[in-house]
Amino acid sequence: MLDVELEPEDRKIIVDAIRDIPDFPKPGITFKDISTILNNRTAFCTLMDHLEERYEDMEIDFVAGIDARGFIFGAALARDLNVGFVPIRKKGKLPYTTISEKYALEYGVDEVEMHIDAFRGEENPRILLIDDLIATGGTASAAASLIQKAGGNLIESCFVMSLDFLGGKEKIEKFAPVYSVLGEK
Amino acid sequence: MLDVELEPEDRKIIVDAIRDIPDFPKPGITFKDISTILNNRTAFCTLMDHLEERYEDMEIDFVAGIDARGFIFGAALARDLNVGFVPIRKKGKLPYTTISEKYALEYGVDEVEMHIDAFRGEENPRILLIDDLIATGGTASAAASLIQKAGGNLIESCFVMSLDFLGGKEKIEKFAPVYSVLGEK
Repeated sequence: MLDVELEPEDRKIIVDAIRDIPDFPKPGITFKDISTILNNRTAFCTLMDHLEERYEDMEIDFVAGIDARGFIFGAALARDLNVGFVPIRKKGKLPYTTISEKYALEYGVDEVEMHIDAFRGEENPRILLIDDLIATGGTASAAASLIQKAGGNLIESCFVMSLDFLGGKEKIEKFAPVYSVLGEK
Repeated sequence: MLDVELEPEDRKIIVDAIRDIPDFPKPGITFKDISTILNNRTAFCTLMDHLEERYEDMEIDFVAGIDARGFIFGAALARDLNVGFVPIRKKGKLPYTTISEKYALEYGVDEVEMHIDAFRGEENPRILLIDDLIATGGTASAAASLIQKAGGNLIESCFVMSLDFLGGKEKIEKFAPVYSVLGEK
């Protein structure tokens, strides 16, 4: 497997397009706004070209994206790779029979779901999981667990950014290799 | 403008991929599950090829997609057209300064938001609005209004399916032409 990494000049185009939002969603947190990657045609194209190049020879069968920003990158990548897209959603959003996985929040519990037959039509399907950001890794690990429960062979988990000091990367590395496009922010 | 319509054999591929879910989200409603278009590589490719062909010569600057299924079709199409993608989201989800629009539900009121500078970098930007389904047209009309408030020139509103008996199409036709890929279901 060819491990395609981002070129420094392409990294700069993408990083420069991210907007820092101080004190969102609460005081003391600086939110990384990726909507300014999406509506910047050069940055969006640079990012997606890179993802396409990295994954085009990995024989991915389905891209699974996490609700809701993972839908954006995941669907665009599924289209590039000419494969199916599978949404992983918050509880109660998917209409057919689901499998679900709970995960801990700072206060309380949340739950993600996937359709039980999401990977139909493929034997031992090769899955790429994608989201915009990995922080504590709670949602992503629950998503990885769902993919395996549904019979998927998780090839890699991919994030545009990772907040490595929160430990999410170590948590999800137990399932499959992890790739963070921009590395630690 | 070339008005590219769906070929009957392509329409069949996409329609056959839709799964009917009886009594979802409540008794008496048959939900059209489009996740089975997405995870069917032939159906997804057929649909996206058609959208790309329809819109590639319309000089679209941004594709705006409605949270959350509109993100999937919208981001894939933005990638195909090599343009930016703009998310229109439920209230409280976007981190920067937003403009918002309320709309009536059967019981109560809901609200959608868009970043105030979503279309920056383009003079009189040409916008395509996309979502999976138009029913009563409340969300879509609010989204169309937001696009115009933000200085966007709404070229067309595109939906994979429309439930024409609910009147949504007439409501949003006041803003711009409407295209429903599969027509009435």
